[in-house]
Amino acid sequence: MKGYTNGEIQDFEDETSPAGVILGLDGGTTSTVCICMLASASISFGGGGEAAESLPILSRASAGCSNFNSVGEAAAKETLEKVMVEALSMAHSNCSAVRAICLAVSGVNHPSDQQKILEWVRDLFPCSVKIIIENDAVAAMASGTLGKLHGCVLIAGTGCIAYGFCEDGRQARAAGAGPILGDWGSGYGIAAQALTAIIRAHDGRGPQTTLMNNILNVLGLSSPDEVIGWTYADPSWARIAALVPVVVASAEDGDEVADKILHYSVQELADSVKAVIRRLKLSGEDGKSPFPLVMVGGVIEANNKKWDIGKEVGKLISKDYPGVFPIRPKVSKLSRLQYILWEWQFFLQFSQ
Amino acid sequence: MKGYTNGEIQDFEDETSPAGVILGLDGGTTSTVCICMLASASISFGGGGEAAESLPILSRASAGCSNFNSVGEAAAKETLEKVMVEALSMAHSNCSAVRAICLAVSGVNHPSDQQKILEWVRDLFPCSVKIIIENDAVAAMASGTLGKLHGCVLIAGTGCIAYGFCEDGRQARAAGAGPILGDWGSGYGIAAQALTAIIRAHDGRGPQTTLMNNILNVLGLSSPDEVIGWTYADPSWARIAALVPVVVASAEDGDEVADKILHYSVQELADSVKAVIRRLKLSGEDGKSPFPLVMVGGVIEANNKKWDIGKEVGKLISKDYPGVFPIRPKVSKLSRLQYILWEWQFFLQFSQ
Repeated sequence: MKGYTNGEIQDFEDETSPAGVILGLDGGTTSTVCICMLASASISFGGGGEAAESLPILSRASAGCSNFNSVGEAAAKETLEKVMVEALSMAHSNCSAVRAICLAVSGVNHPSDQQKILEWVRDLFPCSVKIIIENDAVAAMASGTLGKLHGCVLIAGTGCIAYGFCEDGRQARAAGAGPILGDWGSGYGIAAQALTAIIRAHDGRGPQTTLMNNILNVLGLSSPDEVIGWTYADPSWARIAALVPVVVASAEDGDEVADKILHYSVQELADSVKAVIRRLKLSGEDGKSPFPLVMVGGVIEANNKKWDIGKEVGKLISKDYPGVFPIRPKVSKLSRLQYILWEWQFFLQFSQ
Repeated sequence: MKGYTNGEIQDFEDETSPAGVILGLDGGTTSTVCICMLASASISFGGGGEAAESLPILSRASAGCSNFNSVGEAAAKETLEKVMVEALSMAHSNCSAVRAICLAVSGVNHPSDQQKILEWVRDLFPCSVKIIIENDAVAAMASGTLGKLHGCVLIAGTGCIAYGFCEDGRQARAAGAGPILGDWGSGYGIAAQALTAIIRAHDGRGPQTTLMNNILNVLGLSSPDEVIGWTYADPSWARIAALVPVVVASAEDGDEVADKILHYSVQELADSVKAVIRRLKLSGEDGKSPFPLVMVGGVIEANNKKWDIGKEVGKLISKDYPGVFPIRPKVSKLSRLQYILWEWQFFLQFSQ
């Protein structure tokens, strides 16, 4: 049986150790990753947070969107189940060997959301299994601060959310409410505005824009009227958000409409982060104390030749809060999970 | 067998007349109505357009949303089939007696949309049946101009669309692209902005608003975080748009956020109409020629004590186009269908 650490394959003598296994799951609106790790004390945590990425992983499985607000409850539940079962199977393990599960899932906004997912997951595993369910922002935060939950995290992928953590345990969030409820800084928000700009240019309400030809070409459509049918043919948020690179490229080629959409996205993302900073007083009483701002997601990483959305967001925030320390971790969802499992080791009590 | 005209029941001696029957269908994003009329020459059209409302109706059936962009193709097809079969059954008739069908359905934006619905409907009826498929704006237009297709119509219900018709047959439209593509003047658009305002007030990005308590009360929710789950639990556009009366009431009670949302809706609806006027030159070369503007739908009719969205839209348009003549027909969907059947009688050739 082979496991891997930070991409390197490792051998384990006994993956069916009586200590069992733990599952970590990072569920986003675009993709979901689940890792399976041994829960045995012999390979458990030690050293500083830097050691998180060297935690040995038995297996990793991946799947699509697990945000129930995007794909519906039945599809989200199926994705969560499938990816966990697959990770266990790849590790030659099974549900009865599981000791603890950490699920960091986008769309978790309220205790009733945690309860819903708990009910989906609880029946699959022995009742002694410890289960933690949080918003995926928690895993993203940990990935940028070596496991420490302090500061603010901004996720801007298909969806977007700002999440803040104080050292005393207080938390606050802004945005993360999905496309109907005004997440205009998200990849979906950017792409929906670009599609809207095409409709407006076509029917005489808005300025002409190269987004028209650029997006029609990418979608293989011949007329702006066809954009309406394309948009509603499939309700997946990730499908709309996949147009972000076309918007960035159009802006870089000088299109003013595309440029304005990206500037608006930057403003919206910065506003979300600033709302969290204010509420938690992350910058201290004087507004100048240092704090980390972890930024992850496809929109943050959609920097091309000229446009760098993450950089612009950081600049806008630092105008009001000069102590902000932007961090753009170059880690995968897999590594994010290692960090969050690191953070939660004491709660999970699989460390000795 | 009984039929009714303008609400009054009429007797027909022979509803299974060899001349057969015709179906008229008005399909919106909130509701769908289908009427069945005799196609016999003995009761066919005569007189001016005023006579449209006295066309004798054998039966009327109603159902929910038939906009496939809102509820998906399978549900829309089922609704269309069901409501037509029900209207025929209520008239003690059947598919083989049908001579012609007029379908005025929201969501029809492109020839491929007409083709799609034609394929759904064609197989249900004899191949000799004449079938016309148009956007529901066409029926709404006819209802305000005694059957004449000239001028502009604005529908603002769950969705919104502006549609213009020239006497030479040219047509143009603006908006009508659904909630993802920027129909901010629609009932859905108004309600989505109100829900967004709640989220922003709650997470510190927006001003406080009485929309918060007013909408939570109506929905039976206890916390703004629960609004997210409520919003995505059911993708129906009409369910969101049903919150418009709460927004109007909040604005009338002095809430500035609600007031701003309604003003924005007015601006958006007026912009859509003005785009159509410009493209078709409905106000003539001098911009002052008279033309009718028919306004229908739940948003237009959502006037309460102070706020009258339709009136405000008319005022905004008349600033640029003083020849605009707003018409707000007090007719039901049933009567709209009578007008559109009147308009299309020559095409349908069931008049002799």
